[in-house]
Amino acid sequence: MYDTIIIGTGAAGISAALTLKQLNKNFLWIGSKDLSYKISAAEMIRNYPGLSSVSGKDLKNAFLNQIKDMNIEILDKQVTGVYDMTQNYAVLCGSDTYEAKTIILALGVESVKPIKGEVELLGMGVSYCATCDGFLYKNKDITVFSTSKEFEDEVKYLASLAKNVEYLALYKDVDINLDNVNVSFDMPKEIQKENKKIKTILKDREIISDGIFVLKPAISPAILVPGLEALDGHIVINRKCETNLKGVFACGDCTGRPYQYAKAVGEGNVAAHSANEFLQKNK
Amino acid sequence: MYDTIIIGTGAAGISAALTLKQLNKNFLWIGSKDLSYKISAAEMIRNYPGLSSVSGKDLKNAFLNQIKDMNIEILDKQVTGVYDMTQNYAVLCGSDTYEAKTIILALGVESVKPIKGEVELLGMGVSYCATCDGFLYKNKDITVFSTSKEFEDEVKYLASLAKNVEYLALYKDVDINLDNVNVSFDMPKEIQKENKKIKTILKDREIISDGIFVLKPAISPAILVPGLEALDGHIVINRKCETNLKGVFACGDCTGRPYQYAKAVGEGNVAAHSANEFLQKNK
Repeated sequence: MYDTIIIGTGAAGISAALTLKQLNKNFLWIGSKDLSYKISAAEMIRNYPGLSSVSGKDLKNAFLNQIKDMNIEILDKQVTGVYDMTQNYAVLCGSDTYEAKTIILALGVESVKPIKGEVELLGMGVSYCATCDGFLYKNKDITVFSTSKEFEDEVKYLASLAKNVEYLALYKDVDINLDNVNVSFDMPKEIQKENKKIKTILKDREIISDGIFVLKPAISPAILVPGLEALDGHIVINRKCETNLKGVFACGDCTGRPYQYAKAVGEGNVAAHSANEFLQKNK
Repeated sequence: MYDTIIIGTGAAGISAALTLKQLNKNFLWIGSKDLSYKISAAEMIRNYPGLSSVSGKDLKNAFLNQIKDMNIEILDKQVTGVYDMTQNYAVLCGSDTYEAKTIILALGVESVKPIKGEVELLGMGVSYCATCDGFLYKNKDITVFSTSKEFEDEVKYLASLAKNVEYLALYKDVDINLDNVNVSFDMPKEIQKENKKIKTILKDREIISDGIFVLKPAISPAILVPGLEALDGHIVINRKCETNLKGVFACGDCTGRPYQYAKAVGEGNVAAHSANEFLQKNK
């Protein structure tokens, strides 16, 4: 049982992790070992205090070095759900479960609205997690939709299992050349279930497959954490970064604008302090 | 008329200034050219994302270089009052006045509670500002109370004007050796007005002088800005860093705990964005 599980490896998650480490908490940090893709994607950041005109790549390296210096580890997994167990919380990553007394959500923000039917069919032909559900589609036909180059390894992994992959990419410079992957630059308008198949409706054609993977950097918080209060796609928090769920805190872009490093880092710090306070009170 | 006046040169003020600069606002930044003394006083900071195990001195230099790179100037003055002029705000620094449509308060936090009588006698024998009021005490006897070494230049300035100075210092390594300055390590318990003199009551003696200067890094926000809502010495704000006064925003330690660089920097960023939004709406 951990004191805290931090979900997300963007600027807010980093700040929360550094502060929990300093507070000597027993925490688990789940996200990408390479940190949030958004960090290195930033061209030049001029208003982050302490680092003059830093590129996203340099900022990412500064973050990675600091995490290493502090002996902080990242568990490289995708969280598929967070469930209230009354006394504590269970965090699911596919078939693995981790438990903690408090949760810090640093999920980032969805850059693309959910596709019509996506949320309704989640777990019934729609999946967010290649490593969790890929094996269900061995030798089957799948559709994969992704908004970012960072998921290409997952697409290749899926291609190694599936018979055929229809890959719909919403970014430039797709670097996937595999015999069983058909790449097109397109975005689903709607997902439907038809008999036991999944119908993905595009602008001017339809794809029938056994399932669809929707790979995106951030998942809608209300889908990930049942019961969590959200408004316009953002988690509702107060100044202490408390959500409507006791022991669950949120920070960074997932709590709303401005989508800025400084704001995310500030909330990550506050969320860590609030989690610590909660742990002290509920010993 | 400025778009915004930022008051305070700690981490929150720096973050607000960098962001207003990037937003291309016409702003004035008032504080210390050497930044908040607290920054360089920190021994080692380990949880500020992007700078691994940075000393307060190195952090201060990083901030100063960044401000220089961005061509941002600091007006080195002490603010003595902020007044609501209905359509805008007037910021007083002694006898100088500056006007702006919005105000960002990044005042830091008082480390010492006000002395009994201090607030009541402000402007009637009690002063917070050596450069503003020093000339009133030419060839007179004054008492000076300070909590920090950073004010020694002001004490020396006062000594150059006054006849005699009773200097009460609440810090170590006082470095003032002047014939007309008597240094003691003591703290006033109460300040009283007696005839036209000021009586400063210490633990086991009393000092009678013509006035007392109370020099401290942060001034109580409700004293500085009449009408501002504060609670337990902290300015009350919402998640947008809005105070109860329209167009007045607050950030950093003055809004409450945790007293952390990351939290201050985050709120400075949010305050700047909120001020910008306010300016857009009230064009």
